[in-house]
Amino acid sequence: RWIHCIGAGIEHLLPLDWLPVNTVLTNNKGVHAKKAGEYGLMTVLMMHNHFPKIMTNQNNKFYKSIYGTPISGQTIIILGTGNLGGTVAQLLEPLGPKIIGVNRNGKKVKGCTKIVTTNKLEEVLPKADILYVALPETPETIGIIDRYRLSLLKKSCGIINVGRQSAIDYQAICEMLETKKLAGAILDVFSPEPIDPNSHLWKVPNLIISPHVSADDGDNYISQTLNLFFHNLENFISGKSFINIINKDLGY
Amino acid sequence: RWIHCIGAGIEHLLPLDWLPVNTVLTNNKGVHAKKAGEYGLMTVLMMHNHFPKIMTNQNNKFYKSIYGTPISGQTIIILGTGNLGGTVAQLLEPLGPKIIGVNRNGKKVKGCTKIVTTNKLEEVLPKADILYVALPETPETIGIIDRYRLSLLKKSCGIINVGRQSAIDYQAICEMLETKKLAGAILDVFSPEPIDPNSHLWKVPNLIISPHVSADDGDNYISQTLNLFFHNLENFISGKSFINIINKDLGY
Repeated sequence: RWIHCIGAGIEHLLPLDWLPVNTVLTNNKGVHAKKAGEYGLMTVLMMHNHFPKIMTNQNNKFYKSIYGTPISGQTIIILGTGNLGGTVAQLLEPLGPKIIGVNRNGKKVKGCTKIVTTNKLEEVLPKADILYVALPETPETIGIIDRYRLSLLKKSCGIINVGRQSAIDYQAICEMLETKKLAGAILDVFSPEPIDPNSHLWKVPNLIISPHVSADDGDNYISQTLNLFFHNLENFISGKSFINIINKDLGY
Repeated sequence: RWIHCIGAGIEHLLPLDWLPVNTVLTNNKGVHAKKAGEYGLMTVLMMHNHFPKIMTNQNNKFYKSIYGTPISGQTIIILGTGNLGGTVAQLLEPLGPKIIGVNRNGKKVKGCTKIVTTNKLEEVLPKADILYVALPETPETIGIIDRYRLSLLKKSCGIINVGRQSAIDYQAICEMLETKKLAGAILDVFSPEPIDPNSHLWKVPNLIISPHVSADDGDNYISQTLNLFFHNLENFISGKSFINIINKDLGY
């Protein structure tokens, strides 16, 4: 009757044609939101303050001040405005950047200055000072930020990815970082993980390799997951509707 | 009659016994506040999310997830609650950490959960999850965080310094990082700067070397400095009192 998945990403279960018609699949969406919001706030500020470059310089024992400004007035594009991206928008808003949220249906999102639908993505990419990608892996999101779309970004733009590697052409990002066609990147998701010690990724300049820590909360994960599960169990027993139901057609 | 200094630190002018009795000295205090606040918010989140360790791991081509929690409930001590430290407190407050401000006279500071006077410093240091030092260089602050006081910190504590190197025993910090008696450090000020390529600092683990970028704002510094200067000039001409007057006895 009901399957609860204790992760947020369920791409390993797609397509959901195996799921019986009367069975509900729910996931852990939201358990990650607070931690993921703070991680997003931190990485957007790191990108804006040139930390990918500064960390590369430190690795090279090279001391050079690279000054930044307050983030107010910068344009942040958040691609994927679910729990993860949405919380980032709310935390960034008081600092005054322009936040353009991109989602499938144009649904308004708290904290975003403006929302555009995914089919308008190519119109807004050239405006981004920072592109924050927080997408689940679904048939629609695989390869969504391909080499052509990356080429629409300003050379001064930075990219952060906290969803799944499959959304973005990492090979293209690495080449652009090496040829200074992108200012920096902070990537938190890779395929496979862990990254092999011999991987070329370790040598790419202005790239911060964040070891899949954007959303997991070591101390509170289990208790919050149980809270969510028992909340749904209570709903199940009393015949109320579940929260966090996966849409079988959309796959998230 | 009036000297305006276009920096915030005036330690190179101390002691102020050369200043004629009827001459006013003012500085650029506040011009740095917005940028410095965002830098503080960023570095506190970086420390809390283990980024000094994660960056050392990246440097060693070692992929290891080190999970963190939301920052709510952590204890942040801000030593020096002037424009720089005070703005950090205000930006951190909505995220819910406990913020203990430490200043000379116990003056209340917006954003701080609690204020203690400097003579109580040793009582609060053992509580710190993160120690944020934002002090000017004055006779009172030189060496204030010495080896003994560093030893009062928890092994899991991290240190951030944005004031002047002279406030803290950097040699002791390096030894503690090398022997895992401190979790990490983000240092933005050094003496001398730039750091020599042969300096031992580059080899210290779990240390982020931030190249004196915490407060300077490349784009807006001049215009904000001029705004402040002309504001004071207007006050001067119309016989009103100056803002940002340096106290000759305290030296800041």
